[in-house]
Amino acid sequence: MRIVLVGFGVVGQSFAKLLLSRSADLYSQHGVKPRIVACVDNKGSAISPAGLDLERLLMAKKKGTVGMYEKGAAKFDPLHIIENVDAEVVIEATPTDLTTGEPGTSHIISAMRTGKHVISVNKGPLALAFPSLIELANYNGVMLRFSGTVGGGTPILEFAKRCLKGDRIVSFQGILNGTTNYILSKMEEGLTYESALADAKEKGYAEAVPSLDTDGYDAAAKLVIMANWVMGMKVTMKDVARTGISGVKVSDVKSAQSRGNAIKLIAACDSRILEVRPTEVSKKDPICVNGTLNAVTFSSEHSGQQTIIGRGAGGMETASAVLRDLIEIRDTVFER
Amino acid sequence: MRIVLVGFGVVGQSFAKLLLSRSADLYSQHGVKPRIVACVDNKGSAISPAGLDLERLLMAKKKGTVGMYEKGAAKFDPLHIIENVDAEVVIEATPTDLTTGEPGTSHIISAMRTGKHVISVNKGPLALAFPSLIELANYNGVMLRFSGTVGGGTPILEFAKRCLKGDRIVSFQGILNGTTNYILSKMEEGLTYESALADAKEKGYAEAVPSLDTDGYDAAAKLVIMANWVMGMKVTMKDVARTGISGVKVSDVKSAQSRGNAIKLIAACDSRILEVRPTEVSKKDPICVNGTLNAVTFSSEHSGQQTIIGRGAGGMETASAVLRDLIEIRDTVFER
Repeated sequence: MRIVLVGFGVVGQSFAKLLLSRSADLYSQHGVKPRIVACVDNKGSAISPAGLDLERLLMAKKKGTVGMYEKGAAKFDPLHIIENVDAEVVIEATPTDLTTGEPGTSHIISAMRTGKHVISVNKGPLALAFPSLIELANYNGVMLRFSGTVGGGTPILEFAKRCLKGDRIVSFQGILNGTTNYILSKMEEGLTYESALADAKEKGYAEAVPSLDTDGYDAAAKLVIMANWVMGMKVTMKDVARTGISGVKVSDVKSAQSRGNAIKLIAACDSRILEVRPTEVSKKDPICVNGTLNAVTFSSEHSGQQTIIGRGAGGMETASAVLRDLIEIRDTVFER
Repeated sequence: MRIVLVGFGVVGQSFAKLLLSRSADLYSQHGVKPRIVACVDNKGSAISPAGLDLERLLMAKKKGTVGMYEKGAAKFDPLHIIENVDAEVVIEATPTDLTTGEPGTSHIISAMRTGKHVISVNKGPLALAFPSLIELANYNGVMLRFSGTVGGGTPILEFAKRCLKGDRIVSFQGILNGTTNYILSKMEEGLTYESALADAKEKGYAEAVPSLDTDGYDAAAKLVIMANWVMGMKVTMKDVARTGISGVKVSDVKSAQSRGNAIKLIAACDSRILEVRPTEVSKKDPICVNGTLNAVTFSSEHSGQQTIIGRGAGGMETASAVLRDLIEIRDTVFER
C-alpha cells in the first residue's frame, strides 16, 4: 500500500519508526507492505514512488525538515502532493486546530476527492465536520478512519464498534483527556489548581497555552467523534455543553474525597445530551482512574456496562492506532 | 440460520428471550434470522424444522422440560439430535464439568464432525482440550466460538483478538472469577473468609459446593481459554499453577490494605507461565475492581497497557455474547 504522510511530528515520526521495526511481521502476519511514497511537513517535502527510505527520512527531519531528504529537490505543498502523488492512503497528522479545522480539513477533502482512503490522527476536522466528512467518504467510495484521535493507543472506538456488535449502546461516559485528569489527581494529593497545572506543564503533559485541555475542548472534540461513530449521532463541537476544570477548587476536591469520591472531567453522551463537565465520581467506579489514564464506560442494552482503560496519548501508542487503521483498510479493500 | 440448542438452563433460556425481543432488529441490522430448530435439555427434546415457537418452548421448560413442547413427541438424546437435525450452528450450553469435560466435549465433536459451526458457553471442553478442538474445527472447515466462556457479556476475548490487531500482546493478567472477587471484597470490609463465603452463597454468587470458584478452577479454565485464543499457546488445565483463596486470612487482607493494596485472585499469563493465585495489587491499578466485577489488563508491545472491566456473569449478558458469536459466524460464512 502506498501512503502519503502529511505532517511529520511526534506521531508521524513514531509511525515511521514503527514501520521500520515491524516491516517483516506486518507482511508475514497481515499481508501488508506499507510504503510511504511521499511525506510533507511545514517546511518541505520528500517524494519517492518506490517508497522513501525511512531511516533517511527521520535523519532529514532531525536536520529540520523532510525537505532535506534529497538535496535540491523541488518543494511541494501538501495539497499538491495529496492530489498528484499516486497512493492508496493519506495519513493526516498535522496539528489539531479546533477553531478552523485547518489545514487538516482541506487535506482530507482533497484526498477523498482524488479517491484516496484517509487515516486522520487530527481531531480538528472530525470534531468540526464529522457528518459531512463521512458523507464525502461514502460519496467517493473511500474509507475514513481515525482510531488515534480518541484514546491514543487504547482502542476505544474499535471496542465500541466491533466488540459490542449485536448489542445497542445506549450511553457512555468517560475521562477522555489525560492532562486534566493528571491535574485533578494532583489536586487530590493537596496541590492547588495553579501548582498542579504548573507541574503538568513541567512534565510536558500540558501545553504552554493549556486552554485546549483545561477548558474541555480536547475532551469535547473526542466526545463528538465518539457520538458520531459509536451512537450514529450527527453532531459537531457546537452541540457540546462544555465546562472546564479551572473553576474546580481544592475544597471541592477535599469534600468529594471525604465522601469516598473524586472530581473528574467527565464527557458524557446518552444519545440526546452531549456534555463535558467536572463531575463527582465514586472511587469504586472503574471509570475513576488516576494520572494521565483515560477511561470510558459503555452501557449496552443487553450486555450491561463495560469499561475500557488505557493511556490516552503517546507517539508510539498513537502510531500503533494508525497501523490498526491501515490494516483494517487493507482487509476491507482486499475483501471487496 | 438454523440452530440446535443443547442445554436449556439460565443461558439457554436467556438466549431464547433475547431472540424473542430482538428478532426484528437482528434481521434489519445484521441480516441474521436465527431459528432454533431443535432444543434438548436433560429430560427431553423438542424439534421443528420450521423453527420452534420460543414462547411455547420457554413455557414447556417452566413445566419441567422442553420435552413438554409437543405432547407425545418422541424423546431424543442430544447426540442423536446434533447428528440428525439439519442445522448450521450448534450452541453447547450444558453445565461445565472441569474434570471430564462431558457431556459438552462429545456434543462439540459430534457437531463439528457433521459439519456444524459450534458456539460453546461451556468452559469444560475448551479448558481440557482447546488445542485439539480447534484442530478438529479447522479439519472440518467449521467455526468454533466461545465468547461467553470468559467475561460473560464483557467481550474480553474479542477485545484482545480484534481491537489489538496489528500489535502483539506480550502478557495479560486479570480477575476472571466474580465469586472469589466478591468474597475477597467482603473480607476487606471486615468479614472472615467463612462468613464472606456464606454471604456469597446466600446472594447466589457461590454454588453449594463452591470449590470450583474458591480453589481457582473456574479462573484457571478461563485463563487456559485466553492463553490459547489470545496468545496462541497450546495449553490445557494441567498447565496452570493454581492456588485458591481459602488460605487467605483477614490479617493478610488488612495488612495489604495498610499498604494501599488489596488481595485479588489474579490469573496471569506471560506466554511462558500460566498461574492463578492470590496476589497483592495496588488499589490505584485499574485492575483492582470490587464486587463481582471481572477485569483484565493486556500488555502489548507497542500500544501499552489496556484494561477492560465488566460483569463476568449473568444469563442475559452471556446470551448476548452467544448472539455476538452467531453474528460473527454469519458474517464470516457469508463473506466466504
